[in-house]
Amino acid sequence: MIILDGKATADKIKIEIAAKVDEILLKGGKRPHLAAILVGEDGASQTYVGHKEKACAQVGFTSTILRFSDTITEDFLINEIAAINANPDIDGLIVQLPLPKHINEQRVIETIDPKKDVDGFHPENVGRMVLGLPSFVSATPWGIMELLKRYSIETSGKNCVVIGRSNIVGRPMANLLSQKSKPGDCTVTICHSRTKDIKEHTLNADIIIAALGIPEFLTGDMVKDGAVIIDVGITRVKADNKSGFRLVGDVLFREVSPKCSYITPVPGGVGPMTIISLLNNTLKAAGY
Amino acid sequence: MIILDGKATADKIKIEIAAKVDEILLKGGKRPHLAAILVGEDGASQTYVGHKEKACAQVGFTSTILRFSDTITEDFLINEIAAINANPDIDGLIVQLPLPKHINEQRVIETIDPKKDVDGFHPENVGRMVLGLPSFVSATPWGIMELLKRYSIETSGKNCVVIGRSNIVGRPMANLLSQKSKPGDCTVTICHSRTKDIKEHTLNADIIIAALGIPEFLTGDMVKDGAVIIDVGITRVKADNKSGFRLVGDVLFREVSPKCSYITPVPGGVGPMTIISLLNNTLKAAGY
Repeated sequence: MIILDGKATADKIKIEIAAKVDEILLKGGKRPHLAAILVGEDGASQTYVGHKEKACAQVGFTSTILRFSDTITEDFLINEIAAINANPDIDGLIVQLPLPKHINEQRVIETIDPKKDVDGFHPENVGRMVLGLPSFVSATPWGIMELLKRYSIETSGKNCVVIGRSNIVGRPMANLLSQKSKPGDCTVTICHSRTKDIKEHTLNADIIIAALGIPEFLTGDMVKDGAVIIDVGITRVKADNKSGFRLVGDVLFREVSPKCSYITPVPGGVGPMTIISLLNNTLKAAGY
Repeated sequence: MIILDGKATADKIKIEIAAKVDEILLKGGKRPHLAAILVGEDGASQTYVGHKEKACAQVGFTSTILRFSDTITEDFLINEIAAINANPDIDGLIVQLPLPKHINEQRVIETIDPKKDVDGFHPENVGRMVLGLPSFVSATPWGIMELLKRYSIETSGKNCVVIGRSNIVGRPMANLLSQKSKPGDCTVTICHSRTKDIKEHTLNADIIIAALGIPEFLTGDMVKDGAVIIDVGITRVKADNKSGFRLVGDVLFREVSPKCSYITPVPGGVGPMTIISLLNNTLKAAGY
């Protein structure tokens, strides 16, 4: 059993991107520039935006954080986005979600210029991804595809079961892995809350993407020997330790890990890869 | 075994749409207006556009056909589309494919205003469909979903196998049938040319969508009793009759039909439904 080390892979890619930025600057190019909009005082959102700012600094990107009070109007926010869309110095734009309830998130997402939409949430980017056209793939699917690529995991002709049909993980994964691409060319089954017998499907799977958000859902008896396991879940559960909690995935690691060929740990698997997608997409938005 | 009669269903929906148009006019509304662009002299394309024009007349839509020589430039065509985008009298626009080789089809598709894109080919519409947002669904997937709905076929929790991953049939079908919707909520497996053993999957399927374009591919031994069979294929094969050919689907009808609960015939199944999607989408584009 081989651990798919998301932390080490993410660190490696950061070094590659930093080298790429040096090369751009040497050739007289401009630093890639990511703008992030943060509305309100939500603690988790502040932490996430902070991590993104730090990652930009690590690779040599310029970053701009626009912080607004949660009392701003939707139209004010739309106008701010329009200004960034029109600003040629800014390559990529993200709006940290969730937004205050009085603001229509979908309208906000659809206001971002698809060419600067480095979160890959605009329907045009989703459509381009599904059609196999060049696009910005969103964070978690990009991170998983990159892990599969970096570890040279064979996917062609494999049976892949995706558990969960969310718009941000399960559905894009099913679309990406079933495409004529590498990684890709899997026979993909997408399971969800209405699936009658998930085990019937997972037992036949060479690759399982667990993205349903139920802690330790995937148990040893549901997995065939030698399968590749990607665990997207991350939930805080109470524990008898100093912090009072531990982080667990959607996979019961102690049962599943001895049976499989590759597995992502939680934490340190898919998680660290997601922020890299933002860096990669910003580099692409800048034209590199 | 019940035949899913696409011809009769399509005729019924045409009558419903015609009644809707009468109602719109009675209330002082404007006739829905579909514009079609036809480039060159391809015989099949002329026939298809002719059918669409006739269907518009049958339900009381206005239709405009713009016929251009195959020597027009790409920029000329782009400008024509921009003019139609800006014309408030035209609700829906289709560009008949294929286009001459010197014209970039993808650029043309992406020039059509997504709000007038009644073929549902613009990436923004594809993305909206995948995300479960209101969108124009393309012809064949729309027709299949409507047939399932009209015949009240239970899909929730069923195992559905889609054979074929094309952007115009297999992929949208997999996305639509796996969504939280009615019809929908299926556990969907998408099989294709790289799938190792398609029979292993189809034998477990409650619903099979055959859309791979190989005549009579799906044979009796690949289907379990009581399955619902949707045959998207339509190929001309040589035959000893007056016309010298017959039309066959991707399903070996004589073997499969005795085993299944519902089946679409070829011709007269999915085919006649596709043109109806254009009428339905144009009505929607007109705001009804």
